[in-house]
Amino acid sequence: MVRVSFEEMKTEITRVLIKNGFTEEKAKKSATLFATASLDGVYSHGLNRVPRLVEYINQGWVDVHGEPTLIDSNGLIERYDGNFGPGDLNATYCMDRAMELAKDNLLGMVTINQTSHWMRGGNYGWQAADAGYIGICWTNTESSMPAWGAMDAKLGNNPLVLAVPNKDNSIVLDMAMSQFSYGKLQTTRLNEGKLPIDGGFNEQGELTRNPEEIEQSRRILPMGYWKGSGMALLLDLIATLLSQGNSTTALDQMKPETHVSGYGVSQVFIAMNPNALSGEAFTKEVVENTIAHFKQARPSEDSSDISYPGENTRKRREENLEKGIPVDTAIWEQVLQL
Amino acid sequence: MVRVSFEEMKTEITRVLIKNGFTEEKAKKSATLFATASLDGVYSHGLNRVPRLVEYINQGWVDVHGEPTLIDSNGLIERYDGNFGPGDLNATYCMDRAMELAKDNLLGMVTINQTSHWMRGGNYGWQAADAGYIGICWTNTESSMPAWGAMDAKLGNNPLVLAVPNKDNSIVLDMAMSQFSYGKLQTTRLNEGKLPIDGGFNEQGELTRNPEEIEQSRRILPMGYWKGSGMALLLDLIATLLSQGNSTTALDQMKPETHVSGYGVSQVFIAMNPNALSGEAFTKEVVENTIAHFKQARPSEDSSDISYPGENTRKRREENLEKGIPVDTAIWEQVLQL
Repeated sequence: MVRVSFEEMKTEITRVLIKNGFTEEKAKKSATLFATASLDGVYSHGLNRVPRLVEYINQGWVDVHGEPTLIDSNGLIERYDGNFGPGDLNATYCMDRAMELAKDNLLGMVTINQTSHWMRGGNYGWQAADAGYIGICWTNTESSMPAWGAMDAKLGNNPLVLAVPNKDNSIVLDMAMSQFSYGKLQTTRLNEGKLPIDGGFNEQGELTRNPEEIEQSRRILPMGYWKGSGMALLLDLIATLLSQGNSTTALDQMKPETHVSGYGVSQVFIAMNPNALSGEAFTKEVVENTIAHFKQARPSEDSSDISYPGENTRKRREENLEKGIPVDTAIWEQVLQL
Repeated sequence: MVRVSFEEMKTEITRVLIKNGFTEEKAKKSATLFATASLDGVYSHGLNRVPRLVEYINQGWVDVHGEPTLIDSNGLIERYDGNFGPGDLNATYCMDRAMELAKDNLLGMVTINQTSHWMRGGNYGWQAADAGYIGICWTNTESSMPAWGAMDAKLGNNPLVLAVPNKDNSIVLDMAMSQFSYGKLQTTRLNEGKLPIDGGFNEQGELTRNPEEIEQSRRILPMGYWKGSGMALLLDLIATLLSQGNSTTALDQMKPETHVSGYGVSQVFIAMNPNALSGEAFTKEVVENTIAHFKQARPSEDSSDISYPGENTRKRREENLEKGIPVDTAIWEQVLQL
């Protein structure tokens, strides 16, 4: 493990993206999003993901020149074609547009189809919250998770992001519909650990905390069992219908050579302006009182503190800004060679 | 157990509500909502809940004359004061208004504050789906669930409803943020059963499937552990900010004599018109292809079929329409006496 400063990481990723056809402006934007994911501790969708993006560009699965083009609009809802452009830039654009629409209408909604993997979804929640907006966004994905009661993966992992702004205490939830990600299974296995709770089924159909068994069976568990399973289905359908894009089913049925992570997915971005609705003082009071109330609970036996979504992100951000971002040495070497 | 026809149940509940001050029109509407919940198998929030509603009316916690009054509107978002009216009628009104707004704008949003328990949330999802709309709604509640990592309940159970229309195959998810409801714990205990998976912690802080232990500790588990915990917090904040209503914190801090289930809660109703966006044929194709794909998975070892949200509801509805709705004899007697 090495520690790399936020600035150095941005510079290095910017260089790689320019070398792979990005304009300087887009390279800087995308590099900032990748580096921010790592800064915030979401290593799997930060720097670690850059080599795969380069591969996708080389294979023609991501078009570095692709940009969202407006399909239709009613002044409140805008619908875009993502043209297989970089998913992080497309998503940032969409949340910006949703906030712009919300300026006039209190609420704005943007949908996009034919886009690419948005990398770390939380970025777009922070984007909204940092600008003072409530942000809600989600994406569908190709299938990666069995429904509750099923052996075969026919559901996307369809992450959902919910964000509420509050100056230095924004609350941002970024969650996939599986209890754990495959990235978490991998790192747990590499550390020879067990999951803290059941994460899926083994080949015998028994719930297990052993990450390797789940990697083998590919039977990862939806969060909340039937609940995450149902939610994944509904989020997919709503994103598909609103964007007139590909459903998880359509993604699964694509020709094999483009059946890759995030290719052609559908997304929804909603922004709402709580301060325009009820004033900044009310927002601040509600959020602060809620956090204070939430924190009054006694910690349970195994926990030392009770944290709200985004709280530990911010702590990690501060720590990584100060000490540098921890990076797997081999991955850093790989990125330097790209 | 006795079986009562849907019509008889409606008639009986209508009688009780009129006797308790409802107009005939409102009594019929509310009775239909209660009876539909029972018809669909959500017994805890159907007939079984009627005695408690009568108690709440008698205590002054629900105002039978209360109706939503418009606070402000921008033509797209309407915000109402619920005036402590019957929560089911208030919620039905709000979803109707959201659909009306969505007729012109593709999307409509209605929020309400100072309302009462909406009883079965799924009703408002079916209401939207049956009318051809995507429906999204949620409510906050007084706290009833500890956050992940906490011993004391500082989070509401904040149920979320997601609905996608498709003629006879609408997909409707109605889920609380806890893995199980206290109603489910009670019925499991009365049947001397165990929960199929962990439902909470016992007094020793160990995860348990024993419903009685959870009823004693009051440490019910959020669905997806930290995920449902985070989501409950965000849904509460968003509903509070958009409605300018009471947060879970504010509800918890009410004077003890009105600190009762659902008193003064905040709710959000969103309706979107997928057919106006992309045509009825596209909606139908997406939903039917998705269901077909979903059903292609092999059932897992312990399951005989794989069902989507709303599928079993519809089956139960048909069965109960045909055979009559199963009702606990003592509760039926109690309602007859009201």
